Amino acid sequence: MARKLVKKRGKKVGAAPGTLVHVGDKTDTVAQIRVVDYDQEHLRDQRLKDPNACRAFKSGPRVAWINVEGVHEVHTVEALGQGLGLHPLVMEDILNTDQRPKVESYDDYLYIVIKMLQYDPLQHEIRPEQVSLILARHYVLSCQERAGNVFDGVRERLRTGRRIRFLGTDYLAYALLDAIVDNYFALLEQLGERIEALEEELITRPTPATLAQIHHFKREMLLLRKAVWPLREALAKLTRDETSLIAAETRIYLRDVYDHCVHVLDTLETLRDLLAGMLDLYLSSISNRMNEIMKVLTIMATIFIPLTFIAGVYGMNFEHMPELAWPWAYPAVLLLMLGVAAGLLVFFRLRKWI
Amino acid sequence: MARKLVKKRGKKVGAAPGTLVHVGDKTDTVAQIRVVDYDQEHLRDQRLKDPNACRAFKSGPRVAWINVEGVHEVHTVEALGQGLGLHPLVMEDILNTDQRPKVESYDDYLYIVIKMLQYDPLQHEIRPEQVSLILARHYVLSCQERAGNVFDGVRERLRTGRRIRFLGTDYLAYALLDAIVDNYFALLEQLGERIEALEEELITRPTPATLAQIHHFKREMLLLRKAVWPLREALAKLTRDETSLIAAETRIYLRDVYDHCVHVLDTLETLRDLLAGMLDLYLSSISNRMNEIMKVLTIMATIFIPLTFIAGVYGMNFEHMPELAWPWAYPAVLLLMLGVAAGLLVFFRLRKWI
Amino acid sequence: MARKLVKKRGKKVGAAPGTLVHVGDKTDTVAQIRVVDYDQEHLRDQRLKDPNACRAFKSGPRVAWINVEGVHEVHTVEALGQGLGLHPLVMEDILNTDQRPKVESYDDYLYIVIKMLQYDPLQHEIRPEQVSLILARHYVLSCQERAGNVFDGVRERLRTGRRIRFLGTDYLAYALLDAIVDNYFALLEQLGERIEALEEELITRPTPATLAQIHHFKREMLLLRKAVWPLREALAKLTRDETSLIAAETRIYLRDVYDHCVHVLDTLETLRDLLAGMLDLYLSSISNRMNEIMKVLTIMATIFIPLTFIAGVYGMNFEHMPELAWPWAYPAVLLLMLGVAAGLLVFFRLRKWI
Amino acid sequence: MARKLVKKRGKKVGAAPGTLVHVGDKTDTVAQIRVVDYDQEHLRDQRLKDPNACRAFKSGPRVAWINVEGVHEVHTVEALGQGLGLHPLVMEDILNTDQRPKVESYDDYLYIVIKMLQYDPLQHEIRPEQVSLILARHYVLSCQERAGNVFDGVRERLRTGRRIRFLGTDYLAYALLDAIVDNYFALLEQLGERIEALEEELITRPTPATLAQIHHFKREMLLLRKAVWPLREALAKLTRDETSLIAAETRIYLRDVYDHCVHVLDTLETLRDLLAGMLDLYLSSISNRMNEIMKVLTIMATIFIPLTFIAGVYGMNFEHMPELAWPWAYPAVLLLMLGVAAGLLVFFRLRKWI
Amino acid sequence: MARKLVKKRGKKVGAAPGTLVHVGDKTDTVAQIRVVDYDQEHLRDQRLKDPNACRAFKSGPRVAWINVEGVHEVHTVEALGQGLGLHPLVMEDILNTDQRPKVESYDDYLYIVIKMLQYDPLQHEIRPEQVSLILARHYVLSCQERAGNVFDGVRERLRTGRRIRFLGTDYLAYALLDAIVDNYFALLEQLGERIEALEEELITRPTPATLAQIHHFKREMLLLRKAVWPLREALAKLTRDETSLIAAETRIYLRDVYDHCVHVLDTLETLRDLLAGMLDLYLSSISNRMNEIMKVLTIMATIFIPLTFIAGVYGMNFEHMPELAWPWAYPAVLLLMLGVAAGLLVFFRLRKWI
Repeated sequence: MARKLVKKRGKKVGAAPGTLVHVGDKTDTVAQIRVVDYDQEHLRDQRLKDPNACRAFKSGPRVAWINVEGVHEVHTVEALGQGLGLHPLVMEDILNTDQRPKVESYDDYLYIVIKMLQYDPLQHEIRPEQVSLILARHYVLSCQERAGNVFDGVRERLRTGRRIRFLGTDYLAYALLDAIVDNYFALLEQLGERIEALEEELITRPTPATLAQIHHFKREMLLLRKAVWPLREALAKLTRDETSLIAAETRIYLRDVYDHCVHVLDTLETLRDLLAGMLDLYLSSISNRMNEIMKVLTIMATIFIPLTFIAGVYGMNFEHMPELAWPWAYPAVLLLMLGVAAGLLVFFRLRKWI
Repeated sequence: MARKLVKKRGKKVGAAPGTLVHVGDKTDTVAQIRVVDYDQEHLRDQRLKDPNACRAFKSGPRVAWINVEGVHEVHTVEALGQGLGLHPLVMEDILNTDQRPKVESYDDYLYIVIKMLQYDPLQHEIRPEQVSLILARHYVLSCQERAGNVFDGVRERLRTGRRIRFLGTDYLAYALLDAIVDNYFALLEQLGERIEALEEELITRPTPATLAQIHHFKREMLLLRKAVWPLREALAKLTRDETSLIAAETRIYLRDVYDHCVHVLDTLETLRDLLAGMLDLYLSSISNRMNEIMKVLTIMATIFIPLTFIAGVYGMNFEHMPELAWPWAYPAVLLLMLGVAAGLLVFFRLRKWI
Repeated sequence: MARKLVKKRGKKVGAAPGTLVHVGDKTDTVAQIRVVDYDQEHLRDQRLKDPNACRAFKSGPRVAWINVEGVHEVHTVEALGQGLGLHPLVMEDILNTDQRPKVESYDDYLYIVIKMLQYDPLQHEIRPEQVSLILARHYVLSCQERAGNVFDGVRERLRTGRRIRFLGTDYLAYALLDAIVDNYFALLEQLGERIEALEEELITRPTPATLAQIHHFKREMLLLRKAVWPLREALAKLTRDETSLIAAETRIYLRDVYDHCVHVLDTLETLRDLLAGMLDLYLSSISNRMNEIMKVLTIMATIFIPLTFIAGVYGMNFEHMPELAWPWAYPAVLLLMLGVAAGLLVFFRLRKWI
Repeated sequence: MARKLVKKRGKKVGAAPGTLVHVGDKTDTVAQIRVVDYDQEHLRDQRLKDPNACRAFKSGPRVAWINVEGVHEVHTVEALGQGLGLHPLVMEDILNTDQRPKVESYDDYLYIVIKMLQYDPLQHEIRPEQVSLILARHYVLSCQERAGNVFDGVRERLRTGRRIRFLGTDYLAYALLDAIVDNYFALLEQLGERIEALEEELITRPTPATLAQIHHFKREMLLLRKAVWPLREALAKLTRDETSLIAAETRIYLRDVYDHCVHVLDTLETLRDLLAGMLDLYLSSISNRMNEIMKVLTIMATIFIPLTFIAGVYGMNFEHMPELAWPWAYPAVLLLMLGVAAGLLVFFRLRKWI
Repeated sequence: MARKLVKKRGKKVGAAPGTLVHVGDKTDTVAQIRVVDYDQEHLRDQRLKDPNACRAFKSGPRVAWINVEGVHEVHTVEALGQGLGLHPLVMEDILNTDQRPKVESYDDYLYIVIKMLQYDPLQHEIRPEQVSLILARHYVLSCQERAGNVFDGVRERLRTGRRIRFLGTDYLAYALLDAIVDNYFALLEQLGERIEALEEELITRPTPATLAQIHHFKREMLLLRKAVWPLREALAKLTRDETSLIAAETRIYLRDVYDHCVHVLDTLETLRDLLAGMLDLYLSSISNRMNEIMKVLTIMATIFIPLTFIAGVYGMNFEHMPELAWPWAYPAVLLLMLGVAAGLLVFFRLRKWI
């Protein structure tokens, strides 16, 4: 539970708007810029050493996908942003990886922030990563925090020359969004499986560790919801927005991504409700268990307490206790004890306690 | 509790949009295509071997109802979709049985997703099944996951040549939706009966199994709500939508289905609230029970503990205990014990503990 | 708790829309049709044997109030509906007494469904009854499930020739709605009184029966809310609706009914919150009580346990226990015991346990 | 807790709309009518014996404030209402002191219902009182249930000839509303102080009485919310309403009252959340306390139980118990007992129980 | 916990609108007025002794930022307000530091209220301070309750002659708002860190102090939410408002502040949910602990109770107890006791209690 729910902003607080400071986990890898530019016939896939070289892709004629892995290098992002003519606030937001998912329209491009979520099976934790997309007429700029393979499918489809090659930047942006949202389903599958396994465990053998697990998953759900809830709003805006950058044809596809996002939220709420129900169930089963233990104590104690008392009475050392001399007294007392025990057992049985 | 709340998507995640992959339970039955085409005078009911033959029904002049049972055969759905000119996303969604209920309008047809829900009395579980409807000018395509008898009533009405034969595809689609939503009431009746029986049981003889049952039904309610809540929105869109495919006359009927759907939701929320109240009641009755058991222990223990102590005192072996020699000491001690016990009983009675 | 939250629909499920089947409690009384028709000068009050005779009142010139008591006779409702030219769905809904309150506008009439609620003081239960109103230009048709006296006030006002006689069907419909909603206040008064009595009882002497009562009233509140919540929406629609059937003057009165309905909902929510608070209070007072009992047990037990141990030590039969022979040993041990008991009491007092 | 959450309506239920019946607490004081009429130069303050005399103020030319204290005299309200030409429903609502706060616009006046709330420091209760305002072109009619001094500030300002004398009835009505809403802050201050004192008490020395107090304040909050929540809506309507009775200049002031009302609601919700948190805290501290008591019992009991057993063994009367004769047996057993006790204490310490 | 959730308003209640009374903490510092006026080339930074001197800045031509530290001096605010021609209600609100965040548009200026929040690390408390901004064509007036350094960054940027010097009052107001909202992130970081540390503590070693801490942070969250929630609404209004005071260019920046505010709210809700989950976890771990302690008691007690009884039986002094004389009786009884203890241990093990 080392990950912070609230990211450190360091020297960012109080800085002027547009100040370019990286907010996020530091890594010592080098940022990679990879550009795929294509039209129906040709496709070129290259690594860019110099971020200023991106100017060449700004105004076509082919569709260019500029993908940046690693936004911790402020100068790279700055050079890219200036090369492509981005607003200072956009550059600031790309660098600050603690953004809410959102869509903002500028004069000649759209700025989209979305969270890529991956499940770390070792820590049983969700690792969020911020992806920024710039959708312009002739290029799509995508910025990831780390190297990753979520966009491999899109790259593959571009290479094999499919339908995607015949369409513009709007469809490319859609394909990237779709890859990210599709990944949410994989995440939910893994989480759902773990949670249902936990539910099974809860019913058969609840332990305090189960409780800590429930709390852990409730916490993960908070994180997930924080990432997906604003995305819904952002995608809704994207399907409605009056921008000319998105063709009517592509809007149908974006509506599909929106539907997926709503579906993810539904499932999320269902899992949250399930976890809440599991907590209730856990607490109830704990108190049930305690109840049963208490019952055994009660029965043992209340049966033996009077018997021990009787034994105590005849252990007294008074000189004048006539019963002590009677020959049948001992077996009589034993019988009396048996009778008391039996009577109490019958009493408990009648009250349905045993 | 073997059913998963989150469906497995397998190799679907990361695939290109429009990739046709079946998501859902595999069955080894063969998909069946059954076409009923009719006008006011004639009706023909046939099984279609070749899905490509559906092209014949695409443009009239009679009303055709194409019903598919089993969407696990990708090639069948693909052939049908291509024959009828459906959008790739629609075909993808028909095959993916983990969709949210929704209505989407395309140029010349409406695509409706709805969940058919059936109560399995053996497992006490709801079995959801996805039904896709395509409402076009001259045909209605309905795709079910499994063979079933929910649409038998509609088929019967078509055959007996009633009012439905005089109206278009919009009324046919309404009749199918109505059959599915009507079925929800049957489901709620069964669930409601089981829940009220459980409530009865809860009051008369609560057991830990009751708790597991409450949890089970809360879980079923989550599933139900996930299926019905988005349907409400979808039906509202259907009654408002500016499409020319639905006549004003039919909208009155659709409004009726919408009302039914809202009614189902109301009942659902009432049942949910009832289940929440039952959980409270269960927990309270458990702690009441424990309280009563504790009371008996307290009374038994606190009465006998001082008595046993007195007996212990006179069981000590000191040589100089003058009382031991007094002739009336034994009965006096017995009387003292009686007095202590009586005093404690009076004390408990005054405190209203017994 | 014999009443079902979910009504049985019997053979209704799966039937064609417009199929006329009665859903509700069967009674063996005969349906009664009573028609009051009036203008400013004359009023006639008659029982109708033949439902077809209602055709005479369909188009004026006087205002007619057709009141049906008992909707279980399908043929009566069918004859009435056909006589007055009602839509099949309306006839279906009149017969199905498990409707949500709603307002639907048809070409030349409004269809209003509302729940009449009465408190059964013997069962401490709310008995809901569905009332259907048809507001047309020249007549108001009101259908009740059972004979009742809620409309007696309206009948009396018609007879005594007041203001109501000078106004149209819209005002008559308003008067009927107002009579039903006014009745809700009487119901809330009775429920509120019972709940506040229960609250009193809860504070002075909580018993497990109190808990069952709280659950019972929470359940009644669910039922009430299910009846009144949609009514609010329906009445709002009525005050806004662009129909020419309702005069501007009457809308002021309908707004008043709407205000009453919202007031009922406010009170309902307040009572619900109060009941929730009462449940918390009950659970807390139960655990307080248990706490106090535990405290007594602890104090008794922890005082006597060491004393009994000391007595046990000097009850051992070792031959070499020099203390046993000392003459002042017995009183010294008694003093020791007193000291231990006093020390423990002081310890408990310091910890504020007694 | 004698005050009812649901007011008795007595014979009101079932009466015709516009029937003038007083609903509320009966008092035997005489209703007082006081009229202040003024323009920029003159002000006259008089008591009106005859309610019919109010006709003189209906149409100016000066601004008249007609204040009624005591609405239990039906005939007085009736005479006033008829004199000023009020709608029967308005008169009915003035008399019925169980109204929701609301604003209703009639042809030439606005009808405003608002709750005046006062804290009774003896009963620690909020005493609500209904105030009805009629805002017309030339007069403001205000009806209070009881005599009170909340409007004294307004009267004083009128007398000292300030800004208020230069403005119309709209500003006067605003001044009255402002006086009432301002009073809510005084109420919240008193409640807030009491609740924070309770919180202090809760942390230092929780008692069952604290619980009853929390419940009491939650109940008062329900009442407050019922009075203030609808007022917000009503005031919003007042600032937006297209009536010509309110000048643009005055709307700025009304917006200020609206802001105050929203602020009151915010504070209310904060106090409600605080009370909910306090209940949790109370329950937790109770179970903490119980936990600690249980711990002491466990430690005492589990230490002495085995010791008492050992003493019991050597108190047995078998003839052949060789240990009894050993000279060092008694001290050895005492040492054994000490060892057992010490071992258990170490065990508990290791488990962090003590 | 000395700070009040409801501020004292003192003699303010009942006063005429526009009455200038300071509501808030009294300090004995002297109010400071500092004016920075600048254009692209020059900047002058001066302290104003006489508040009336502010008139000089009212109508340009340069941009003036008038900053007041300390609003407890009524006469200073009055002089400023009259000098700048502010509405009496605005002056009243500046003085009353218990305002909801809001934006109000007047004819030629906007009035913005916002809360500056600072974390006091000694008291672990949030200290709120009210900041009022007046945004006019040629000046921005900012009023703080106390001296502080939040605006130092803005002052620095003005001095170093950056972009901000080229833009108007709208950008200056934005810079001030941005500084305040940015500060919220610093606050959330500190709170988030403390809460996550508390969570850690909760899992490893929960104490009653942990509970008090959770309650404390829930309380702080209430305060935070009360300050930030209405701000969101106010900022949304600012970005939409049709005022000519804000240039389109600046709106992009305001939208950014709005996004930050929504982000703060999201994080706030996440922390609230986390705290609620922590309370559940605390209660569960407490009852788990108690459970374990009970288990030990049960096992110890139920094992020794029968053993002690057996010892008691053979401690009885009957003359005719033949077993007492048997030579192997003593070891046999010891074996019996061992057997009983072993049997019980096996029984508990089978039930999985140990």
